[in-house]
Amino acid sequence: MSNIQAVDLPRSYLLLNHGPTVLVTSAHGEARNVMAAAWAMPLDFNPAKMLVVVDKNTYTRELIEASGEFALCIPSRAQAAATLKVGSESGRGEDKFQASGLSTFPASKIGAPLVAGCLGWLECKVVPEPHNQQAYDLFIGEVVAAWAAPDVFSDNRWHFPHDDRRSVHYLAGGSFFATGEAFNVSEPE
Amino acid sequence: MSNIQAVDLPRSYLLLNHGPTVLVTSAHGEARNVMAAAWAMPLDFNPAKMLVVVDKNTYTRELIEASGEFALCIPSRAQAAATLKVGSESGRGEDKFQASGLSTFPASKIGAPLVAGCLGWLECKVVPEPHNQQAYDLFIGEVVAAWAAPDVFSDNRWHFPHDDRRSVHYLAGGSFFATGEAFNVSEPE
Repeated sequence: MSNIQAVDLPRSYLLLNHGPTVLVTSAHGEARNVMAAAWAMPLDFNPAKMLVVVDKNTYTRELIEASGEFALCIPSRAQAAATLKVGSESGRGEDKFQASGLSTFPASKIGAPLVAGCLGWLECKVVPEPHNQQAYDLFIGEVVAAWAAPDVFSDNRWHFPHDDRRSVHYLAGGSFFATGEAFNVSEPE
Repeated sequence: MSNIQAVDLPRSYLLLNHGPTVLVTSAHGEARNVMAAAWAMPLDFNPAKMLVVVDKNTYTRELIEASGEFALCIPSRAQAAATLKVGSESGRGEDKFQASGLSTFPASKIGAPLVAGCLGWLECKVVPEPHNQQAYDLFIGEVVAAWAAPDVFSDNRWHFPHDDRRSVHYLAGGSFFATGEAFNVSEPE
């Protein structure tokens, strides 16, 4: 893939700081899966860590617990329908990548595939916290590699050249917000 | 306050599902404080729980640990400069509400004040998890009351009538995104 660039790990929180919905990919042996998660956010800068909530009933949960790895991929608005689909169906018994038209490419440091056409990618290794996982479905991942699509993120800044390439924020029932206008403020006196 | 309406607690996740930046308010005895947090998200539907990362060095951290309570208030774009200010300065030795021009009104079930003019409010009681708090600065709050401003959230849906009343998503260095265009997708075949 020529159209991805490495993001410095201590800056990788910037990929999720604005709260976009993500695709969670996982793999174990020959099995692989993808689901959507609105409940993902940064936890620490350096070493960079991310949080994601993954329900006990999901196939993704099985694969993450078996492999100790997952990736968070940031879908574009053009991928919103596929995001809804992989967030609504189970990957047990079908390949959800194929079923939703999402193609993949290999990650650099983990076995889970990365979703092509996304805006950014965070390769994560689980920081084992069995109580959080059992009691809250909450996983902590240390970021071991981070990537962004240079048309939308470069020099540690997001810039959305057109609406199809904006990140998205899921609500419920098929409703999303696109990431909107960028603006800067200075502190009030 | 006449311009707030209760949100059913099992639907209160909708206030944070799209990943807006929040103001965290806290109080203990006569002391009170407010800080900004981009790292906040839902953790569970029912009982509704929220996550927020609060650094050890903050005055807010002291007040939350002393009181076992906090509120998450969702600021509007019109409050972005104040959000940056309370996110950049310490509340030790000054009242940050006054310093940033944020006025307050009482919460219903906790001692922390709520910030007037926000879009939504989540009153939370800490679910004690000392390891998460110490190791990760991570707090879990059970939502004990939730409120929204009816001009922007009603019937469990966000609707932003004008740009000053949109929610915001902080990045870094004074840069924000406004919450953007709403859109619906149906699942691809």
